[in-house]
Amino acid sequence: MAGSTYGTIFKITTWGESHGKALGVVIDGCPSGLALCEADIQVYLDRRKPGQSRISTPRKEDDAVEILSGVFEGRTTGTPISLLVKNTSQRSADYSEIASYYRPGHADYTFDKKYGFRDYRGGGRSSGRETIGRVAAGAVAAKLLKEMGITVTAYTRSIGPIEADMSAFDKDTILSTPTAMPDIQASALAENYLKEIMSQSDSCGGIIECIIEGLPAGIGDPVFEKLDANLGKALLSIGAVKAVEIGDGIQVSKARGSENNDAFRMDGNRVIKSTNHAGGILGGISDGSPILLRAHIKPTPSIFRPQNTVNQNKEEISIQIKGRHDPVILPRAVVVMESMAAITILDALLINMSAKAENVISFYKS
Amino acid sequence: MAGSTYGTIFKITTWGESHGKALGVVIDGCPSGLALCEADIQVYLDRRKPGQSRISTPRKEDDAVEILSGVFEGRTTGTPISLLVKNTSQRSADYSEIASYYRPGHADYTFDKKYGFRDYRGGGRSSGRETIGRVAAGAVAAKLLKEMGITVTAYTRSIGPIEADMSAFDKDTILSTPTAMPDIQASALAENYLKEIMSQSDSCGGIIECIIEGLPAGIGDPVFEKLDANLGKALLSIGAVKAVEIGDGIQVSKARGSENNDAFRMDGNRVIKSTNHAGGILGGISDGSPILLRAHIKPTPSIFRPQNTVNQNKEEISIQIKGRHDPVILPRAVVVMESMAAITILDALLINMSAKAENVISFYKS
Amino acid sequence: MAGSTYGTIFKITTWGESHGKALGVVIDGCPSGLALCEADIQVYLDRRKPGQSRISTPRKEDDAVEILSGVFEGRTTGTPISLLVKNTSQRSADYSEIASYYRPGHADYTFDKKYGFRDYRGGGRSSGRETIGRVAAGAVAAKLLKEMGITVTAYTRSIGPIEADMSAFDKDTILSTPTAMPDIQASALAENYLKEIMSQSDSCGGIIECIIEGLPAGIGDPVFEKLDANLGKALLSIGAVKAVEIGDGIQVSKARGSENNDAFRMDGNRVIKSTNHAGGILGGISDGSPILLRAHIKPTPSIFRPQNTVNQNKEEISIQIKGRHDPVILPRAVVVMESMAAITILDALLINMSAKAENVISFYKS
Amino acid sequence: MAGSTYGTIFKITTWGESHGKALGVVIDGCPSGLALCEADIQVYLDRRKPGQSRISTPRKEDDAVEILSGVFEGRTTGTPISLLVKNTSQRSADYSEIASYYRPGHADYTFDKKYGFRDYRGGGRSSGRETIGRVAAGAVAAKLLKEMGITVTAYTRSIGPIEADMSAFDKDTILSTPTAMPDIQASALAENYLKEIMSQSDSCGGIIECIIEGLPAGIGDPVFEKLDANLGKALLSIGAVKAVEIGDGIQVSKARGSENNDAFRMDGNRVIKSTNHAGGILGGISDGSPILLRAHIKPTPSIFRPQNTVNQNKEEISIQIKGRHDPVILPRAVVVMESMAAITILDALLINMSAKAENVISFYKS
Repeated sequence: MAGSTYGTIFKITTWGESHGKALGVVIDGCPSGLALCEADIQVYLDRRKPGQSRISTPRKEDDAVEILSGVFEGRTTGTPISLLVKNTSQRSADYSEIASYYRPGHADYTFDKKYGFRDYRGGGRSSGRETIGRVAAGAVAAKLLKEMGITVTAYTRSIGPIEADMSAFDKDTILSTPTAMPDIQASALAENYLKEIMSQSDSCGGIIECIIEGLPAGIGDPVFEKLDANLGKALLSIGAVKAVEIGDGIQVSKARGSENNDAFRMDGNRVIKSTNHAGGILGGISDGSPILLRAHIKPTPSIFRPQNTVNQNKEEISIQIKGRHDPVILPRAVVVMESMAAITILDALLINMSAKAENVISFYKS
Repeated sequence: MAGSTYGTIFKITTWGESHGKALGVVIDGCPSGLALCEADIQVYLDRRKPGQSRISTPRKEDDAVEILSGVFEGRTTGTPISLLVKNTSQRSADYSEIASYYRPGHADYTFDKKYGFRDYRGGGRSSGRETIGRVAAGAVAAKLLKEMGITVTAYTRSIGPIEADMSAFDKDTILSTPTAMPDIQASALAENYLKEIMSQSDSCGGIIECIIEGLPAGIGDPVFEKLDANLGKALLSIGAVKAVEIGDGIQVSKARGSENNDAFRMDGNRVIKSTNHAGGILGGISDGSPILLRAHIKPTPSIFRPQNTVNQNKEEISIQIKGRHDPVILPRAVVVMESMAAITILDALLINMSAKAENVISFYKS
Repeated sequence: MAGSTYGTIFKITTWGESHGKALGVVIDGCPSGLALCEADIQVYLDRRKPGQSRISTPRKEDDAVEILSGVFEGRTTGTPISLLVKNTSQRSADYSEIASYYRPGHADYTFDKKYGFRDYRGGGRSSGRETIGRVAAGAVAAKLLKEMGITVTAYTRSIGPIEADMSAFDKDTILSTPTAMPDIQASALAENYLKEIMSQSDSCGGIIECIIEGLPAGIGDPVFEKLDANLGKALLSIGAVKAVEIGDGIQVSKARGSENNDAFRMDGNRVIKSTNHAGGILGGISDGSPILLRAHIKPTPSIFRPQNTVNQNKEEISIQIKGRHDPVILPRAVVVMESMAAITILDALLINMSAKAENVISFYKS
Repeated sequence: MAGSTYGTIFKITTWGESHGKALGVVIDGCPSGLALCEADIQVYLDRRKPGQSRISTPRKEDDAVEILSGVFEGRTTGTPISLLVKNTSQRSADYSEIASYYRPGHADYTFDKKYGFRDYRGGGRSSGRETIGRVAAGAVAAKLLKEMGITVTAYTRSIGPIEADMSAFDKDTILSTPTAMPDIQASALAENYLKEIMSQSDSCGGIIECIIEGLPAGIGDPVFEKLDANLGKALLSIGAVKAVEIGDGIQVSKARGSENNDAFRMDGNRVIKSTNHAGGILGGISDGSPILLRAHIKPTPSIFRPQNTVNQNKEEISIQIKGRHDPVILPRAVVVMESMAAITILDALLINMSAKAENVISFYKS
């Protein structure tokens, strides 16, 4: 099991290596009749595209998506949607050296142990380019969610020590700053910080947050398919994520019940919560408040300093990585997180349609 | 989909409500020939049993497990193992009142929204008693892991502000302290803290850590079935867990690449890492170092103070919860976390057996 | 993977051996709010119960079902429904001998090869008693289908050379004849035939047919999850079924396109087919006509004549099987087939609810 | 759920429409290290290619496969293998007319009912071209099986009334006759029969058989994942298959136990069966004898005679189908059946590796 299929009803299968011919995704189970064209997907892919600013790798990749199946006369047909992005800017020569040794912080060693050998060019399947398929599928999921009034918004909360001021939160800023921060001033500070980091041949990490708004109460399943468990898996499946928080997250371990419980109250005829420490999920099921997620991203492991490691001959060596690498992956990872959240939420919504017998009966009696 | 099935090859299905006739689990896909008796499982269930100390609910439950199938002449047969625990100590009368309103921090409201009504007695399926099936299955998984030299050890790292001193770490202490802390002095302090919390009719949270030792490199699958993604899901599926960390966890977002990368080096003929910031997983695949997990647990939502909420008639009311509740769930949740980790690791090991063609061919040629 | 879980949304997990303590099933994903009591299930189990006539084994088993979870105040809660049937009439002594050798036509040899050893008592997991869980779950599925106006009716079409005359078809007769034939005269002939077979210490097979009525068009999925593919799997998973036909079945290989095609025509405002050679399924999706299925059942392998076989010491021996066995399993297998069809159809209906984007959007917008 | 994913460990996802840009398959979970190139796959695709003889459609399609991922330096890497075949010979104009009505025997009506509309060009997703992905994946599965000494051989047993004489069975003939029959004389007769059928603007069906040799005993899982249940599903998922038989198949319903039971005996030190009525499967698990399968294929529904049907305006009309269609699909379906069997068998073999605890333990201890 190579683990490249995700979802129960809205099921995606991604494929492709960093330096192979192409990368892509097959979306199986997308409901029929959704208006869809390549531009809907391209706008998402462009957000993860490299070469967009000084703080991202200077590699230029078009990452132009092609719809190969599943859309007819501008609408999804209900059958598999195959999306393909050709690789065009690969300089495999940059990587020939890494064939022989294990880069610290990368999956070179573990792939070799698992599979006996690996496609070492650009990290192969463990490259960040693997997320192209996720983002292409996420664009489709997000489009259908939007039709239901549900939005998924991710942004960079912090880069290294520089944190966005949430009182300055501005959604549009996320798309216009090179950091994907929602606070233009913090973004400028973060850019300066990154320049400093780069001048030291180093890299850094940060925090991405994600808000899901408009989701009705009742979505998610008890026990193992809890909505937060699935969202957590979705985010932790993104390379470099080392911690995930829901709602108050790590703060709950220091809180008291009297502080952490969210009181219910009425808002007109609607049951709401006075606070949202829970982050919109109770017992694994959405409660109608916004879903709040936070992911901690590790620093880019490809740094340009000398590092100690071993090679395939089991010799200890010192290496210096070359090539083109982001000093921080967050700006481009924001849309990956948004995509994984959208796919997970949509799947939970589709599964939930049969939760009540009365809905099932009325669906088929009408 | 009620979400009560977990795993791909080692697949468990749990069932049962807090105040129903019984709870249990069916384990499908346990390899044949493993020596197994009820005592193997009972010792795990006893660790989550209530009524064991002053800081746990005074409910007395025997939680005696019965093996109904899948074991013959003392060994697993390879067919489903059905495990059953009868409910004996239920006082449903305590709960009749909560039928009409939604307790803050509980799943009453979300179950009602999802299913139209709910078994309100003791929280029904969203009760902590749901974890009985997980722990019974975890005992079986852990037994097989042990035969492979793999151990899973969870413990309470902190309760509220009281943290165990890891330099005082003692494995045996975990089972002997009422807090499941590995540090006898911190445990005593935590007990005092809990008494204070209880005297204030309040509750608190804490941190559980889990170490998996002896796991070979190469386990877990790329992309969506990353070992950390699945372990994260496993832990987040436990009620009350609001954040999960792998290795350095939340600290990575503040770290630099030069600090966070673990250098590879040789230990005799074995490739090892000089440090373990990664927590034993690179690219979603185990790297041979211990796996390090951390879960943040929210305070018990059942507190004995007056709280504001609404009832099913959409009236705002003030309530005061009665019954028997733990002021902190960590001591009993430690074995649940251990169980979920064991099940997840075992399943990944079984799936991994067919990763290499040469292993498949030699398995069937011999 | 022991293979005891079936279904995607309406998911059942069966467990239990012929001579173990009990057998049962966990139904996960049953929609909430369905009225359900033990009597609803018992009536199905009673149809597969042995000891009901001279042509069935004289073993008396009560097979009384107990609902352990998932039903509250007479309705399903949406959480797992655990159903248990205790074993009461086991005479394991009858089977001690078969521990050492492989009965022809049984799974003794293949279980030993797969698992290294087996629970030999009464066939263990490969016994016909394994179907108790299927039938209990089938009763629940059939009840929900009935609320949607969908019925599943199976019956014995033939026993050995004796075939029911379909022009004499009478639904009530199925439940009243000992053969489960819908034709009282053929049933009498079949009883005589079976007596003759029994007097010769032999056994025989036959054909079971199944009609599903009231299913709307559009159910089932293209490619691998075709409705006929899943129904075929459902039936072939019943021990002793060696062939499955849909609609005209084996006759299509001799037919011409001009004969086999079903013309569409109008019936008032409704599209219907003039004929139903297809058996209600086109391209794997229901077409609104009745679904027609046929299963060929092999003769009971337990016969009382001397047979050649080998034992575990790899010695060729002659054996004579003892114990209590049906000369034909069809009368009791009819309800098993009905159950598997009901479970499969219900699951397909639940999955289908999200096929169209417009239905998904309107479901969540209302 | 569009149903285009199949398998548990060796998992394939097919996509593509008859007249879309391309068709393909993603194979996830193929073991690493298998030598693989495009020619290995092309040889399988060429067997299903149209335009190869007078009895097949005169459409010329190259169906040239391209490996886009998952293979590095000539070997599978263990990550998803994406295979793509471009559509080149589509004349969509031929199909514009069928947009408005429902062809008898086709899936036009059922797709419209399920999804609200359909890609009508050439049958869209319900076209026989959908099987390209299956065959490409089947070639990979068959290659790995061959390394284990397991072969899968399908052939046309009969076309209409013309049946191959099995005493004349010659494996090579299957690939050299235009009918894919293993008997050169029957093949010539069948060709004549097909010319007659074509001159009458009609079509016919037939029988395909499949033999799996070299499979060890012990493969397949009890209850729902029986090897025969999965093979039956695999075959029934191929469009036009209306009945499936295992071993003696439909004959078992007329047989007696004394005839149908296969006696075990010794062949040197090996347990074998004296006969193989069971077709190599007992209790859903392989018994070491060859697996014998038979599928009944319906006549091609596209015939050139006038037919009655209805259109989307619910008007009764008479139509006459144009275009290029095979009078019988069997010669090209043989390799599809072989492919589905190979995929199913391989997946069962990979799953089976963890059946015994002793194997699991020794795998990880070594």
